[in-house]
Amino acid sequence: MSNQPQEKYGHLVIIGGHEDRQHGMEILTRFVELAGGADANIVVITAASQVADQMWEMYDQAFGNLGVECRSHLLITSRQDANSEEFVRRVDQATGIFMTGGDQKRLLALIGGSALDAAMHVALKIRGATIGGTSAGASAMSGHMLATGRVETLPEKGSVSLGAGLGFLHRVVIDQHFSERQRLSRLLTIVAQNPYLQGIGIDEDTALVVALGSGIEVLGQGAVTIVDGRTMITNVADIKDRDTPELIDVRLHLLPAGSSYQLPTADTEPGKRLPPQLLDILENITKRNPIS
Amino acid sequence: MSNQPQEKYGHLVIIGGHEDRQHGMEILTRFVELAGGADANIVVITAASQVADQMWEMYDQAFGNLGVECRSHLLITSRQDANSEEFVRRVDQATGIFMTGGDQKRLLALIGGSALDAAMHVALKIRGATIGGTSAGASAMSGHMLATGRVETLPEKGSVSLGAGLGFLHRVVIDQHFSERQRLSRLLTIVAQNPYLQGIGIDEDTALVVALGSGIEVLGQGAVTIVDGRTMITNVADIKDRDTPELIDVRLHLLPAGSSYQLPTADTEPGKRLPPQLLDILENITKRNPIS
Repeated sequence: MSNQPQEKYGHLVIIGGHEDRQHGMEILTRFVELAGGADANIVVITAASQVADQMWEMYDQAFGNLGVECRSHLLITSRQDANSEEFVRRVDQATGIFMTGGDQKRLLALIGGSALDAAMHVALKIRGATIGGTSAGASAMSGHMLATGRVETLPEKGSVSLGAGLGFLHRVVIDQHFSERQRLSRLLTIVAQNPYLQGIGIDEDTALVVALGSGIEVLGQGAVTIVDGRTMITNVADIKDRDTPELIDVRLHLLPAGSSYQLPTADTEPGKRLPPQLLDILENITKRNPIS
Repeated sequence: MSNQPQEKYGHLVIIGGHEDRQHGMEILTRFVELAGGADANIVVITAASQVADQMWEMYDQAFGNLGVECRSHLLITSRQDANSEEFVRRVDQATGIFMTGGDQKRLLALIGGSALDAAMHVALKIRGATIGGTSAGASAMSGHMLATGRVETLPEKGSVSLGAGLGFLHRVVIDQHFSERQRLSRLLTIVAQNPYLQGIGIDEDTALVVALGSGIEVLGQGAVTIVDGRTMITNVADIKDRDTPELIDVRLHLLPAGSSYQLPTADTEPGKRLPPQLLDILENITKRNPIS
């Protein structure tokens, strides 16, 4: 007999900010469903925000209106909080973990590498819990995280910096409020300088739902834009800071709300196979990365 | 002996609007150089504009400051003007023909298919003249011309319509004020619905200079964005009007000011050959289309 726990990978609900919290609540409804519906145990991490109580109040009400009895606020104001037995225990019991907006640098400074962070990985990768995040909470999900970045009219070398995120996804970088704040040039800057990463831009009231190991879905009002620079040719290494790089052959994919894509299985009919241009991106986004 | 005239293809100077007309005038300087410098004979076509005299005044001053003695205004307010012997004669003598901004539909309604239009093709393709156009005058240069189009946050089926342009370039569509007015979503809409066309977006105070049969160059302050949908996979045929299409594998190229690309010749060293991703785009843009 193995001592390995039975691994059950869960879902990520990666939201581009400003999701509807009062009316149809399509995205939050899906988050709750994935977390177990009325039986869900949801904890809300507000550490990205400077107005944590207001954030909690908003989601308390939304999740309450969606019929979730068991919901609570993890008010984290220090790394001690993020390492406290009490909070780790609550994450260990949660079926849904939701990270609000604010500043992803603040969020990571408080919880990055903490016992809580580790418990979130266990929740996602062993217990099959659902992790949601909106705005800063979305950007924080990837291993390489957009830390600071000006939005310029054109891509501009040196205008963006990355930091270390929570690492639920790898080889991607996530930007939010994407079309609304015209952030493609910023995402192109990141990809130009970091072609190891695929850029994912998520619009407001729009979610990229990732079923680890199986597929993705786009929900809400906008679209998900993916920028892939792996085959790109660029002079970015040779130009000065603040100059605009030449970019040849960046691959751009626009996945509007309503799209869904599944990894092929042995049963997948040939006619329903994914376009090859999308398959390896999907494989990367849905990859079941081990707990490190 | 052949009766064929000796063909000498000229240049297109395709400007994204708001080019500097008072200070360094980099783009207008290049236009004048290509048209023969101080010996140039420049005619200005203001027919796109409702304020033709003001437009002429502005370019009269700019070209005067650049040392061009022989410059004149083709004030076209009717198709009769565009078919008049006098105006055709002046185009026949011009070494530089410049089209101002305004509305490209108005420009085409006045000069499209006229004797003046035919004389411009002869000027470009037989006499090696330079044709410049800014804003509406830029969009008018391609065979398929952006006629009307809302700029939405995301691409939107049915939000853009094309018309017939002057046809100095084919298989492209040109948009201007491109990054400044955030027009990528509009260009993606065009390409999604018309993948026959490559989308060319030109920033303000930026020019795509096309040496027909030989190469291109980007001048000014911004960049030229090229969107190529030939390998794209999309559901645009199946969705409703106003819906956002799925777009998989659009190729995007960003050519900042300072870039230049030459068609390969027998002498081109292997190390200086163009990336194949760009070569056939360059071949298309520089193609010496016959007079039709």
